[in-house]
Amino acid sequence: MFNELINSIDEELKRLLNPVYPERIYKAMGYSVMAGGKRMRPLLMLLAHKAVGGDKNDKRIMTFACALEMIHTYSLIHDDLPAMDNDDLRRGKPTCHRQFDEATAILAGDGLLTYAFELMLYDPSFKYEPRYTRAAWEIARLSGMDGMLVGQVVDVESEGKQIDAGTLEYIHKNKTGGLIKAALMAGGIIGGADESKIKLLESLGEDMGYAFQIKDDILDVTSTEEVLGKPILSDEKNQKVTYVSLYGLEKAQKDYIELSRQAVDKAKKLGEEAEQLADYINSLVDRVK
Amino acid sequence: MFNELINSIDEELKRLLNPVYPERIYKAMGYSVMAGGKRMRPLLMLLAHKAVGGDKNDKRIMTFACALEMIHTYSLIHDDLPAMDNDDLRRGKPTCHRQFDEATAILAGDGLLTYAFELMLYDPSFKYEPRYTRAAWEIARLSGMDGMLVGQVVDVESEGKQIDAGTLEYIHKNKTGGLIKAALMAGGIIGGADESKIKLLESLGEDMGYAFQIKDDILDVTSTEEVLGKPILSDEKNQKVTYVSLYGLEKAQKDYIELSRQAVDKAKKLGEEAEQLADYINSLVDRVK
Repeated sequence: MFNELINSIDEELKRLLNPVYPERIYKAMGYSVMAGGKRMRPLLMLLAHKAVGGDKNDKRIMTFACALEMIHTYSLIHDDLPAMDNDDLRRGKPTCHRQFDEATAILAGDGLLTYAFELMLYDPSFKYEPRYTRAAWEIARLSGMDGMLVGQVVDVESEGKQIDAGTLEYIHKNKTGGLIKAALMAGGIIGGADESKIKLLESLGEDMGYAFQIKDDILDVTSTEEVLGKPILSDEKNQKVTYVSLYGLEKAQKDYIELSRQAVDKAKKLGEEAEQLADYINSLVDRVK
Repeated sequence: MFNELINSIDEELKRLLNPVYPERIYKAMGYSVMAGGKRMRPLLMLLAHKAVGGDKNDKRIMTFACALEMIHTYSLIHDDLPAMDNDDLRRGKPTCHRQFDEATAILAGDGLLTYAFELMLYDPSFKYEPRYTRAAWEIARLSGMDGMLVGQVVDVESEGKQIDAGTLEYIHKNKTGGLIKAALMAGGIIGGADESKIKLLESLGEDMGYAFQIKDDILDVTSTEEVLGKPILSDEKNQKVTYVSLYGLEKAQKDYIELSRQAVDKAKKLGEEAEQLADYINSLVDRVK
C-alpha cells in the first residue's frame, strides 16, 4: 500500500547521494542509507503533510523527508561503532565500519548529518519561507539536545545498570521518539498546519515513539535473528533494562496496543485527509521486524 | 586587542553549554569547547559582520559565532579519535576521548554539530528573516559536502600517499578553508552585505584558509611541542604531504606572506569599518601557534 511512496523516497535518496568527488564518502553514506529499512520516518513526514492538507506540488517536503532519513541513518552508523554497540550486522548486512572502515564510518555519519541540514536549508531563491526554517529547527532540536542524542546518551550510560521506570521512559521517548515526533511535526509545519494541529502531531509522535520502542523490546525476546536481520536477545546480553524486563511481556504487549490505538485516534482527529496516516500507524502495530 | 571580544565569545559559549540533564554530555561538549583555542572563526564572523556595517544590537550574530565554534570543535573531537588521528593531546590537554571515553567523544561531537544548527535556527518569534537561514545554509554547506568534511575525507585518504599539488590544495582549501569562508560569509550575510561584498568575503576566506593551513604546515617543522601544545613533526611521522614537503620551507613562507597580504587587501575593500578585520588578519600572520 505504501510501496509507491517508499519507492519515491528511495529514488530521491539515491539521487541525492549519487557519488561525486570524493566518491568514497558518498559511497559509504549511500551504502548505509540504501541498506534497507522501513523508511518509517520519511513516510510519517509525507503522510503528516498530506493529513493536514499540505500542497501536493511542494517538492521540498520530499527533500525534508530524505534529510530526516539521513539523520536517522547517521545515528545508526555511529551507534554501531566499536566504541558504542560494536555491531557487525545491521539489517542483515555488514555495518558501515565493517564494510568500509571505522574512520570512514565516523565521517559518513558526520557527512549525513551535515548534508541533511544543507539540503533542508537550501532555497535557490533565497526567499526562505519561515515554515521550512521552523521545520528544520524542530528537526535539529529533536535529533539533538531535546530528543534522539540525549536519549542515546542516557541509554549508553545506563548499560549494565538497574535503571528506574522514569529513566527508561526518558530513553524511549527521546532516543526513538525524537525523530518520530520530528517527522510528524515537520510534515505538519511544512503542510501549513495551525498550532493546535502541530501540538496534536507532537502528542501523536510521543505515543508512537514510545510504542515503537516497546515493540522493539518485545521483538528482541520473541523474534528470530533471520526475521529481524540482527541478533535477538541482545538486550539481555548487554544487560539492558527494557520495557519487557521491567514490566513483563504481557503488560508490554498490552501497553503497546493501547499506545498504538491512542496514536491512531489522534491521527484521525487531524481531518479527512488523515486516513492514510492512520492506516500506516495501524500497519505498524503488526510489524514483525 | 581582541581580548574583550574573545571574552564575550567565551562567556556565551559557557552559558550555552551550561550542563543540564544528562550532564555528562554537556560536560564533555563544554570540556572540548572551553579547552582553549584562538576563537579565530567566531572572531572572523563578528569582525566581518562589523566590516559590512551590521547592526551592533543584533544578538543573534554572537549565537551564530558560537555555533560555528561548536562545529569547529566537533570536527577536532572526531579527528582526534583513535580511528582517525589517534591524538592524546589537544591544546596541551587530554583529548575528549582520553578525558572521558570514546563513546562519549563520538556523542559529544555529534551533539555539538546538532546543537549548532538548533541554535542557529532558533527564533522564538518564528519570523525567520531569510538572511539568518541563508547564513545557516552556507555554514552547513561549507562544514560539509562543500568544505570541511570532504577536505577531511581526502586528507584521511591521502595519508601515506604521494599526492599531487592539486589534491593538497583541495585538502587545504576545504578542510581548513571551509569554516573560515563560512565565518566570513555568514558574518557578512547576517550584517546585510550585498552580493558583491559576500563574494569578496568568500574570496578573502579562500586566501585566508589556504594561508592558515600553510602556516600550520610551517609551524609543524619550525616550532616546539611546548609552544604548539601538540607534537611537532607530526606530518612527517604520519607520512603526510604538506605545502612544506612539496614546495620547501622558503617558498611556503613566501607564499604564506603573499596570501595573507592579499587577504588584508580584500578586507580593506569592504569599507571603512573593515579596519578591525584587516588588523586581525594581520595579527594572524605572526602567530606562533
